[in-house]
Amino acid sequence: MIVFLDGELVPEELAVVSVFDRGFLYGDGLFETMRVSGGRPFLWQEHMARLERGAAFLKIQIPFPADDLQKHAEALIQRNQLPEALLRLTLSRGTGPRGYSPRGADKPRLVMTLHPTPVTDGAHSAQWSLVTASVRLPAAEPLAQFKTCNKLAQIMARSEADAAGAQEALLLNTDGFVVEASSSNLFWITDGKVVTPPLVSGVLAGVTRAMVLELCRGLGIATQEGTIRPEALAKAEGVFLSLSSVGIAEGVSLDGRPLARSPLVPRIEKAYADVLLRNSAR
Amino acid sequence: MIVFLDGELVPEELAVVSVFDRGFLYGDGLFETMRVSGGRPFLWQEHMARLERGAAFLKIQIPFPADDLQKHAEALIQRNQLPEALLRLTLSRGTGPRGYSPRGADKPRLVMTLHPTPVTDGAHSAQWSLVTASVRLPAAEPLAQFKTCNKLAQIMARSEADAAGAQEALLLNTDGFVVEASSSNLFWITDGKVVTPPLVSGVLAGVTRAMVLELCRGLGIATQEGTIRPEALAKAEGVFLSLSSVGIAEGVSLDGRPLARSPLVPRIEKAYADVLLRNSAR
Repeated sequence: MIVFLDGELVPEELAVVSVFDRGFLYGDGLFETMRVSGGRPFLWQEHMARLERGAAFLKIQIPFPADDLQKHAEALIQRNQLPEALLRLTLSRGTGPRGYSPRGADKPRLVMTLHPTPVTDGAHSAQWSLVTASVRLPAAEPLAQFKTCNKLAQIMARSEADAAGAQEALLLNTDGFVVEASSSNLFWITDGKVVTPPLVSGVLAGVTRAMVLELCRGLGIATQEGTIRPEALAKAEGVFLSLSSVGIAEGVSLDGRPLARSPLVPRIEKAYADVLLRNSAR
Repeated sequence: MIVFLDGELVPEELAVVSVFDRGFLYGDGLFETMRVSGGRPFLWQEHMARLERGAAFLKIQIPFPADDLQKHAEALIQRNQLPEALLRLTLSRGTGPRGYSPRGADKPRLVMTLHPTPVTDGAHSAQWSLVTASVRLPAAEPLAQFKTCNKLAQIMARSEADAAGAQEALLLNTDGFVVEASSSNLFWITDGKVVTPPLVSGVLAGVTRAMVLELCRGLGIATQEGTIRPEALAKAEGVFLSLSSVGIAEGVSLDGRPLARSPLVPRIEKAYADVLLRNSAR
């Protein structure tokens, strides 16, 4: 596997960073994971827009213009001959003096790697067992909107799903609302409407989340933002998750109890698969 | 500078980790920072005990027995001829399959690096201007007790202190209580008693925090755990912080307003400096 590292394409074994890199020391960075289909990153502009917002918030300068980066990404995909894959882009603040202050750390690093796609793709529906994780996210925390390299809460949550033989774990925020899953945004269906928690509740501004809301509008399905407690979620007309790597995954059980299945979910899945197909045929 | 990397002493420029290391990808690791005095790490056992608790919580195996690690640390100090320094130990989960699940990531990495001591040492009192940070910590989150490599909240807080020309930033938790500072534990004095937030409020289990409580008892100063809101903290009889790198730092102002100074703080500082001196003369 060839890796993009700070402007160069290098073999995997040479793709290394210093142990003094703040990404390694503190998770001081951001990342994006996107589908690659037909040799092109899917929703590249949207992922870049989120990366840029996050980088502005953390005050990390992205060391390449977005257009150059897209060309580098396409070259990486071609070089590895992986037109169907996942692309991870990592932006780290780089090395600097010891301590939390980012002062003096002004050589950010940018890495892109390719990974196999999950077995599930947009054309086949993913049906997931869910568990409620014990770890909680801080409510109303602006940092949570960005895809930062601080993912221990999500790792702990995912471990709980693994231990239960489930595919994904739902997280509550400190206000007691279910707000998202470890690597996906949460949607549920109430009175025929698709509902998802607002960004202010402390959830990641998912690129696929935004696309789902847009697709629903295109399908004439009403959407709204709202909050929900675990008891109510268990009684929803349907539950699904959105994530860049898989697209849409339907929740089929929660903590071992079956969830209701809504006919809206396959419709949204189909609409998503169509958009992905158009990207790859473009 | 020579670095300890997975059992070897290597030059700084060869001290690298893969861009696939979960420490770099997600901050999936733990660390300890301790004073080195007289060629020996100060409070080594206590730091190791916290590392072990954190590693058990995150289910990361520490790849060296604690005794071996201490010998390696002392060899590193000797090799670099830095008997007065800071030692940082980082434990990362290592590489594994893509995604948050830690399954399959079973080759943890252990790094130790040395750094210059801050100008302030235990023998001279540190007097710090403080600000209240806007970022909030999740209340009652067990993960917060451990010194994990997820430090973006602390980095953002410290940036706010930098911007205000202050030395440290205080953080509130999602319940609205001031619970700790970006890299130090918080103490205040009320009715002649030294008070600090309980670990359940979501604060780091500081090694120096535990030592301060012990020193106070030795000095006949009453201690208790308690919560405090920013308005009340501003009116305390005294405020100080504890951290391994510096020891005790007295808060002299908060958000630009002077804080009261308590005669208890220099007494505790003196007691701490004496313990550090005994370590180095041992």
